[in-house]
Amino acid sequence: MMKLALLNELRDQNPVVFNIANFVTVQDVANGLNALGASPIMSAEVQEAETMVQIAGAVCINLGTLTEQQIHQMHVVGQFANQYHKPVVLDPVAVGAVPYRKAVAAALLEAIDVAIIRGNAGEIAALADIDWQAKGIDAGKGQGDLVEIAKACAQKYHCCVILSGPTDVITDGTRVAQVHNGTPLFQLHVGSGDLLSSIVAAFTAVNDDYFEAAQTACLVLAATGELVASQLTADRPATFAVDLIDKLSLVKVSEITDITVIN
Amino acid sequence: MMKLALLNELRDQNPVVFNIANFVTVQDVANGLNALGASPIMSAEVQEAETMVQIAGAVCINLGTLTEQQIHQMHVVGQFANQYHKPVVLDPVAVGAVPYRKAVAAALLEAIDVAIIRGNAGEIAALADIDWQAKGIDAGKGQGDLVEIAKACAQKYHCCVILSGPTDVITDGTRVAQVHNGTPLFQLHVGSGDLLSSIVAAFTAVNDDYFEAAQTACLVLAATGELVASQLTADRPATFAVDLIDKLSLVKVSEITDITVIN
Amino acid sequence: MMKLALLNELRDQNPVVFNIANFVTVQDVANGLNALGASPIMSAEVQEAETMVQIAGAVCINLGTLTEQQIHQMHVVGQFANQYHKPVVLDPVAVGAVPYRKAVAAALLEAIDVAIIRGNAGEIAALADIDWQAKGIDAGKGQGDLVEIAKACAQKYHCCVILSGPTDVITDGTRVAQVHNGTPLFQLHVGSGDLLSSIVAAFTAVNDDYFEAAQTACLVLAATGELVASQLTADRPATFAVDLIDKLSLVKVSEITDITVIN
Repeated sequence: MMKLALLNELRDQNPVVFNIANFVTVQDVANGLNALGASPIMSAEVQEAETMVQIAGAVCINLGTLTEQQIHQMHVVGQFANQYHKPVVLDPVAVGAVPYRKAVAAALLEAIDVAIIRGNAGEIAALADIDWQAKGIDAGKGQGDLVEIAKACAQKYHCCVILSGPTDVITDGTRVAQVHNGTPLFQLHVGSGDLLSSIVAAFTAVNDDYFEAAQTACLVLAATGELVASQLTADRPATFAVDLIDKLSLVKVSEITDITVIN
Repeated sequence: MMKLALLNELRDQNPVVFNIANFVTVQDVANGLNALGASPIMSAEVQEAETMVQIAGAVCINLGTLTEQQIHQMHVVGQFANQYHKPVVLDPVAVGAVPYRKAVAAALLEAIDVAIIRGNAGEIAALADIDWQAKGIDAGKGQGDLVEIAKACAQKYHCCVILSGPTDVITDGTRVAQVHNGTPLFQLHVGSGDLLSSIVAAFTAVNDDYFEAAQTACLVLAATGELVASQLTADRPATFAVDLIDKLSLVKVSEITDITVIN
Repeated sequence: MMKLALLNELRDQNPVVFNIANFVTVQDVANGLNALGASPIMSAEVQEAETMVQIAGAVCINLGTLTEQQIHQMHVVGQFANQYHKPVVLDPVAVGAVPYRKAVAAALLEAIDVAIIRGNAGEIAALADIDWQAKGIDAGKGQGDLVEIAKACAQKYHCCVILSGPTDVITDGTRVAQVHNGTPLFQLHVGSGDLLSSIVAAFTAVNDDYFEAAQTACLVLAATGELVASQLTADRPATFAVDLIDKLSLVKVSEITDITVIN
């Protein structure tokens, strides 16, 4: 069962989320976190890493536009996060398509204890060393296989995994939950995944059960998106993005219903 | 004659456009490409350059917020693009005003075969070594001169040139087409030129005739802007930007009409 | 008395504002400056620093996402700005929370003559070496203390200071003005402070009396925000941001009234 009360707790606590961000979507992520009730910090300088980690309630590391310099920062920040017991969410952008990125993610996962990995099917399969494309798995079908991929990834790295897509699969390697996204508009707007990862981090800052935090984050964003999409008369991706941030600020726990959840 | 059917081809093929981006406008460019039906990639790390070029259908190099490190990346990416026969679009931001940038652009054009250069009158004149300001050419008048400038630039660099402004001049050095932009709102929103350059790249990914790809790209963006502007009751630059991305997703070939084209 | 006629002067002169920007909010800042009637430049490469300063009417240095490389650029740009007599506005983001940033700001203020510092209560108190948190000052109350903090900072650095919040306190160390912000929506949108700093820089480019320029900038932004907020039926942070940029383009001097100003 989802603990939607976590949304109210998040708003009460206003946790600081330190993002090593993707520069393409950073403004949307900051505004989305802020609207939801968290407090975003973006920092790029390793010399302030320890202070930023101390201030933060959770850390989100996004590989979206990585550079050698940023990878170094990711390692330093990740180690401070482990030292200060701040949960780390990893968004392994494009590790399925780019071998260099897969190596970067593997090195990070070797060096740092990660609370949650959030990626799409191709990314999670790559981290689990499962040949996703060769198996011809379509994110729209074969849900059973997606669950297996997510579980394999979670078991390999001893963390929670969110394999997101039309249906988000959330697992700690044993338990599995699924959240059905009610709108395809998330795919039409660049950065929906980045926003989800940072929102997941925000929930880990207010709840020690990361499996529960992950489910709640997925449900809150999916339901908010569905509420917004239901008001649009056409598939307007930029209007959807504006309305989504508005609604993240306004949405109430009582509105987040009618979402199919399979445990 | 414009090949507007290219828009449908682009949407069918969903080409990947690899952008070395301007960090000011990168989110709008990514969302604009995505809305149109292309697939944007932004990468800043030279170690993944070869993979990114292999994945991409075209490359757009934007000088907007260049750094020494990024200039190195531009050369590496450009050379891989030539090696793998992926068309390169160059956006020479501010080369007319900043001598350092003109030298950077000249070095890139010396080292790399570029398919299309897209800039404003001052930028294209600078690359063509024509004293644009001294001649007192106003982008609003003297269209004849703008055509000569664009042709000189195209002939000098053996590529297509788009000199954009209230009227976009497109030339391969011999043939010339013009697209009249129906709204001044493009000037009120920062990054309209960056978006055009990346949309041009997207069309080069689906059509080998770059002169034709350039015309279609200019026409699609101009017509979409005009359709959006015609619905606004005041000159609202931020609403225009949101509506433009929405409309890039929704616009149909049959709507793109009533635009004066002079061949 | 505010010189609101400066807004018309700014629009006539279209001053170039060179921003060393925070990458989180850079697109909004560029669009806000552009909408208001200024001309934004963002540059990250030190080799073009002198040209950019020469082109600019004012410089805004924002510490929001500083790196060692960017700090070097800030020093070079700041020294050229002093040499060419272009006013410098400093936005000391997070110097109250991060000791490393306070040291960076102190070194900049030691090396460069700054026209105006714009920060929130915690940032201005940190620069003035006043223990803001220990004194338990709440930005919502204790206005008298905020005035003293702003004056102490201005006197220490021999410049104007804007301590912004629900009420903006503007001082040159002797004279004090206050602008009451009519809407809390500025706090719900990330980057309102960054935008204010850059708008302040735009006004210093058209008026040598920086105390007057600072007041006018604060009033124009506060009043525009209030006009926008009064049209919203709910606290929609993203819609507010879009409408704010629209309104910065459309707002007339005659509309900017009914704002309480205490001199």
